Amino acid sequence: MKKKVVLAFSGGLDTSFCCIYLTQDRGLEVHSVIVNTGGFSEEELKTIEERAYALGVASHSVVDETESYYQDCIRFLVYGNVLKNATYPLSVSAERVSQATAIAGYAKKIGAEYVAHGSTGAGNDQVRFDMIFNILIPGVEIITPIRDLKLSREAEIEYLKNHGVEYSAEKARYSINKGIWGTSVGGKETLTSHDTLPEEAWPTQVSETEPRKIELSFEKGELVGLDGEAMPPVKAIQQLQAIAQPYGIGRDIHVGDTIIGIKGRVGFEAAAPVIIIKAHHTLEKHTLTKWQLSWKDQLASFYGNWLHEGQFHDPIMRDIEAFLASTQDKVSGKVFVKLMPYRFQVLGIESAHDLMSAKFGSYGEMNNAWTGEDVKGFSKIFGNQVMIWHKVNADKAQAED
Amino acid sequence: MKKKVVLAFSGGLDTSFCCIYLTQDRGLEVHSVIVNTGGFSEEELKTIEERAYALGVASHSVVDETESYYQDCIRFLVYGNVLKNATYPLSVSAERVSQATAIAGYAKKIGAEYVAHGSTGAGNDQVRFDMIFNILIPGVEIITPIRDLKLSREAEIEYLKNHGVEYSAEKARYSINKGIWGTSVGGKETLTSHDTLPEEAWPTQVSETEPRKIELSFEKGELVGLDGEAMPPVKAIQQLQAIAQPYGIGRDIHVGDTIIGIKGRVGFEAAAPVIIIKAHHTLEKHTLTKWQLSWKDQLASFYGNWLHEGQFHDPIMRDIEAFLASTQDKVSGKVFVKLMPYRFQVLGIESAHDLMSAKFGSYGEMNNAWTGEDVKGFSKIFGNQVMIWHKVNADKAQAED
Amino acid sequence: MKKKVVLAFSGGLDTSFCCIYLTQDRGLEVHSVIVNTGGFSEEELKTIEERAYALGVASHSVVDETESYYQDCIRFLVYGNVLKNATYPLSVSAERVSQATAIAGYAKKIGAEYVAHGSTGAGNDQVRFDMIFNILIPGVEIITPIRDLKLSREAEIEYLKNHGVEYSAEKARYSINKGIWGTSVGGKETLTSHDTLPEEAWPTQVSETEPRKIELSFEKGELVGLDGEAMPPVKAIQQLQAIAQPYGIGRDIHVGDTIIGIKGRVGFEAAAPVIIIKAHHTLEKHTLTKWQLSWKDQLASFYGNWLHEGQFHDPIMRDIEAFLASTQDKVSGKVFVKLMPYRFQVLGIESAHDLMSAKFGSYGEMNNAWTGEDVKGFSKIFGNQVMIWHKVNADKAQAED
Amino acid sequence: MKKKVVLAFSGGLDTSFCCIYLTQDRGLEVHSVIVNTGGFSEEELKTIEERAYALGVASHSVVDETESYYQDCIRFLVYGNVLKNATYPLSVSAERVSQATAIAGYAKKIGAEYVAHGSTGAGNDQVRFDMIFNILIPGVEIITPIRDLKLSREAEIEYLKNHGVEYSAEKARYSINKGIWGTSVGGKETLTSHDTLPEEAWPTQVSETEPRKIELSFEKGELVGLDGEAMPPVKAIQQLQAIAQPYGIGRDIHVGDTIIGIKGRVGFEAAAPVIIIKAHHTLEKHTLTKWQLSWKDQLASFYGNWLHEGQFHDPIMRDIEAFLASTQDKVSGKVFVKLMPYRFQVLGIESAHDLMSAKFGSYGEMNNAWTGEDVKGFSKIFGNQVMIWHKVNADKAQAED
Repeated sequence: MKKKVVLAFSGGLDTSFCCIYLTQDRGLEVHSVIVNTGGFSEEELKTIEERAYALGVASHSVVDETESYYQDCIRFLVYGNVLKNATYPLSVSAERVSQATAIAGYAKKIGAEYVAHGSTGAGNDQVRFDMIFNILIPGVEIITPIRDLKLSREAEIEYLKNHGVEYSAEKARYSINKGIWGTSVGGKETLTSHDTLPEEAWPTQVSETEPRKIELSFEKGELVGLDGEAMPPVKAIQQLQAIAQPYGIGRDIHVGDTIIGIKGRVGFEAAAPVIIIKAHHTLEKHTLTKWQLSWKDQLASFYGNWLHEGQFHDPIMRDIEAFLASTQDKVSGKVFVKLMPYRFQVLGIESAHDLMSAKFGSYGEMNNAWTGEDVKGFSKIFGNQVMIWHKVNADKAQAED
Repeated sequence: MKKKVVLAFSGGLDTSFCCIYLTQDRGLEVHSVIVNTGGFSEEELKTIEERAYALGVASHSVVDETESYYQDCIRFLVYGNVLKNATYPLSVSAERVSQATAIAGYAKKIGAEYVAHGSTGAGNDQVRFDMIFNILIPGVEIITPIRDLKLSREAEIEYLKNHGVEYSAEKARYSINKGIWGTSVGGKETLTSHDTLPEEAWPTQVSETEPRKIELSFEKGELVGLDGEAMPPVKAIQQLQAIAQPYGIGRDIHVGDTIIGIKGRVGFEAAAPVIIIKAHHTLEKHTLTKWQLSWKDQLASFYGNWLHEGQFHDPIMRDIEAFLASTQDKVSGKVFVKLMPYRFQVLGIESAHDLMSAKFGSYGEMNNAWTGEDVKGFSKIFGNQVMIWHKVNADKAQAED
Repeated sequence: MKKKVVLAFSGGLDTSFCCIYLTQDRGLEVHSVIVNTGGFSEEELKTIEERAYALGVASHSVVDETESYYQDCIRFLVYGNVLKNATYPLSVSAERVSQATAIAGYAKKIGAEYVAHGSTGAGNDQVRFDMIFNILIPGVEIITPIRDLKLSREAEIEYLKNHGVEYSAEKARYSINKGIWGTSVGGKETLTSHDTLPEEAWPTQVSETEPRKIELSFEKGELVGLDGEAMPPVKAIQQLQAIAQPYGIGRDIHVGDTIIGIKGRVGFEAAAPVIIIKAHHTLEKHTLTKWQLSWKDQLASFYGNWLHEGQFHDPIMRDIEAFLASTQDKVSGKVFVKLMPYRFQVLGIESAHDLMSAKFGSYGEMNNAWTGEDVKGFSKIFGNQVMIWHKVNADKAQAED
Repeated sequence: MKKKVVLAFSGGLDTSFCCIYLTQDRGLEVHSVIVNTGGFSEEELKTIEERAYALGVASHSVVDETESYYQDCIRFLVYGNVLKNATYPLSVSAERVSQATAIAGYAKKIGAEYVAHGSTGAGNDQVRFDMIFNILIPGVEIITPIRDLKLSREAEIEYLKNHGVEYSAEKARYSINKGIWGTSVGGKETLTSHDTLPEEAWPTQVSETEPRKIELSFEKGELVGLDGEAMPPVKAIQQLQAIAQPYGIGRDIHVGDTIIGIKGRVGFEAAAPVIIIKAHHTLEKHTLTKWQLSWKDQLASFYGNWLHEGQFHDPIMRDIEAFLASTQDKVSGKVFVKLMPYRFQVLGIESAHDLMSAKFGSYGEMNNAWTGEDVKGFSKIFGNQVMIWHKVNADKAQAED
């Protein structure tokens, strides 16, 4: 009886090669799995399934993780306003962790002895897949044909041809990865440090030019409504994305540290994530205390980086999630946003928890909650230690003259 | 003989009132001082001087701190990519510290027994002025007539009139504060949480519509050239501002925590600061290591907040500056930026210190510096502790079943 | 009808003065309250009550907060291994917060219009009491007779005498404050920077000389047993204190920053807190991951400092508590400790969650979970970025020669 | 002509094996090097040299790094009060980095094509050596015979015997590593989680019982004198160690995270490091501001951890060193310490920069620098935001009832 291997399958050249190689050269029973984290349509999934069976897999499964991906991960990226290096919503990084975790679970469920992925030896994904498999299914052996065999694209196509599978030799000019939390775009420009992506490289071309106001409703940090209509967060994200991406909003290039130590550069379009994060952050500026805002920044920055490095299963991540969830208790209200071609503006907020309440005095206006004398006393005590420091060290400096 | 008071003078209603009040009601010899941090033209300074003498000051001085403000403060805001709450370049906060410090120095120089400022009891500036005076000139008494007397605008105008000084009763709809690191704009909209500033409120109206590419040269973190022409940082900032502000770039609304605990909201336009910071940050992403980027964020965030709270003279600030300066050793190179109406794009960079060198392998491409086996080993060890954690605690969980 | 004032009463000179002053000079109905946080015996509380009634209070109440003090505060100091400046378990700081909060609650309950405390203008406690009252009962006016009247000790005694109350003029050489989380000791030596407390100053004299082994049981971070006997945390702390303090363990001098900016020095004896924290920390070193340990340090350090500054009611404290509680999920097991005169030693631990399991390889011993090749690969990738940095910058340095 | 290999040589079994193996089996010209970081006496070095030549090395060198190890590393561990996990002065970790760096320099100098070390596949040292060689001499190939061949102790002895070298089969019960910053001790007890080292395991037996007072002089954070006698830091450390270690001070067991993810436990005795750090820290508590103390903790903790992981050559380490050095500007003065068997006490300090100057008010005593009114105002403003938070959210809670 053949041994089972679970293959993370995308339908592309690399994982198509893996199907044949694992079946024929390695003699394994291949169970292909595709994990949907919100980037695939029904049609795309159908096409991929057909392709898998055409490649001879023993079974093919679609695992839909969109909702759990939101609950286990995206939710906390929103709570934390996570933009890696102040730019990138971690679109792909977060997704891979969710996919690898789902595949590990699937391998466990069907009792596979092997798990395979199509990563090359040159990126982040290999580490995320390897490591999460090592952590969650330590007894299952990992096979990475593309990395191990170091085949060129041409060699893979030739191999497939020799096994009766036709694959177009033409390579797409831009490699695209789409998920609910954004779409990444890589191409020859992103391999340099100085070029930017041309207009035509962006998956969503700009078709909206008329400015539009939109109202986002948050409840304890989660987006739960658009323009007054309540809806679950996953749907709200997808709907906002459909509305905003045609404006060309949320396009940028991320330059970052890969897990393997080299620098990488990648374009992305992520209208909904970028709008949600800025809107959410604005609501927080009105409802959280100074130190909540400050600590959130630090912890969320680590959370994002550690997630990026595939370390989602470190229990510290659960601890930070507990912290972040606690901070969201009063982050409820509406945020008003204006969409325009290539940009957007957060107009303002409305919240029952708004600490900028005129009742307690307005910035620059007189008020009754405290007096000028109070502030004088405050200023004196607030600067007391530094005053002493200067006095002690100035006296000392003079004594030394 | 009359006692001397140094008055921080801006020429506005409040400090005009102070001139008369200090001279006539308090019987002091008033030495008015205006500190220029890059926001005043020669003409404006001339007008303010005339006004001071018209109000009967014993002397009036202009202290130009633009260069020292850059050297002692802005420079580090650039090194640290400081945007308070991910938005605000601290335009006013930083400036006030520089002004208060210069006034303290001036009071010391002329041997004043009093120092006066026109702050009300409702904002950040009173704390910054009070505290810096307490720290640097602890023996000099602080007088704050506006805060102490709690006069209305109308009462001040009436008082001036009674003392032979005419002051227009009409108030500007927006209060503007201009300095080299940005211009703040407050008005009735910023006193609410939900309204945004109308187009006409912005001091610089949008007059440029033609996209323009510009090249910024950095040397050890400082902007030292534009479009290939070398120039000192202060001049480069001013020139970039002149080029970019007419595009309407760098406009936003900051919502933040005042030193006195209430929330405040203020508009600002700061094209040069915002462009410089994003350009500089991009150059850093190419030239610094992961942990340099990470620690810079944390320290710079504290630096900005503590500066905002007027604590510039705490020696911790010197220590953080030593850190930040050290990080800039390799932050040299060019950054390519495209200006467009209301927005800009960082196109890319060029640097001899670029760590994204193709020599060491490109993201997603095969390379020679390490093998797939190396990464396999890395992934195993990198996930070792978390693997053990899951194994230990899963075993325990099963044992408990 | 007289207005009600709630007075935080300790039975000492200052609060005795307040009783008479508030009743007779201010014409208020005084309701004295003493909050027990584990430092008072039944006898002491009885004596204080008698004293209160003798001073003419309308009512006297004892609020026992020991259990809630543990649940709301000490518990998190243990989770966080909080030793301020690596030394002080925050014995008094934490207690004051608990007391002020309880008094605020009591004032609300009886509908008092005033609340009074006996703090002078020279320490931390005035800020803690003032601020917590401002926060929790903002409409209730605060009266601080000792601070406001600036009376000397002698003047207070004279005043009491004139009102028919005798008070011994002799002052204790050392001022002692006792609570469940430690006892502070101040005296003439702690007012200097260079002297230490003499042996006789310590409240608990050393009477135990025989070494003794003791076993501490922790369950999710809480001390729940001693020497195999299960007991609630408060009892376990008290019992450990009774066993260990006669050894002279946990004595030290804390030098710290007061809230008002001056430096202060205070002796303390805190055998149980110091032993519990080192034991608990050791258990954590075996059961938590590297990043859990690291982040706990940072957050707990802030938690301790912010608590010390009386800011317990900032919601950030709840968020950090959520974090800390989450980290304790696996911190269960036994810790073996040896008590000796003036010192103790943590011998080792035993835990089902111990990550130092021989199953996964022992430090310095060969193992099966990974190979030397894996570590080689790890070392290469782990150092990759820094290798590139040196190569890029060395190449550059040579090119410049 | 034979190719050159530089071998990190200690004279122990593993590196003796390497000598023969590299020469005879690999046909290389072996240049053995021992790096002294303060742990070897002249006699020991002489013996090791004789052993090297007896094993047939082409050359043997002693590189004395004690002074540079202090200047480049220990100095910053003192500035930062670095005790890993609040316990361990990083005795071995720091030393290995210094040794690996020196060996890389030596290999470069003599133009070696190979570099070899005797690490096994089970500890931290392999990563430190591998990584630092990869970083500093990326073109030089690393050979690790013990790790690669996975030989048992017996097999190594047998191999040596077959090559004419006698090696005692008896293994020391405790493995000891001695350097200027402390001595580590490993044995069968440290391989468990629950046992402690027996008295006889400690390299320095307790021979001093008479308490002794000692005065440490610091200048800008460095120990530069003992009992009034000025001396360079390295000498002062060594002399303090000679005085204090016979008291049995500074013994403890460190439980920590290895670089490879497992937990490790090791005993150490480090009287001088532990005394210096506590004395230095006390001096800092008197001379630094609150935020200097706070940030030093965070940065030093990272510095120690990253050093422990062998990442000394990451430029972030230089940046943190710049920070730490800056903080030491006023850390000058005397610290009084009392040595007793198994423990010590910091009695107090004396410094011209002491911020606890009675001039500025003493803790708990009345003073003239500020008034009770000032503190009232401070308390009000300091608690303002949290007061507002409670008011806003309580109002909201009531409205919802």
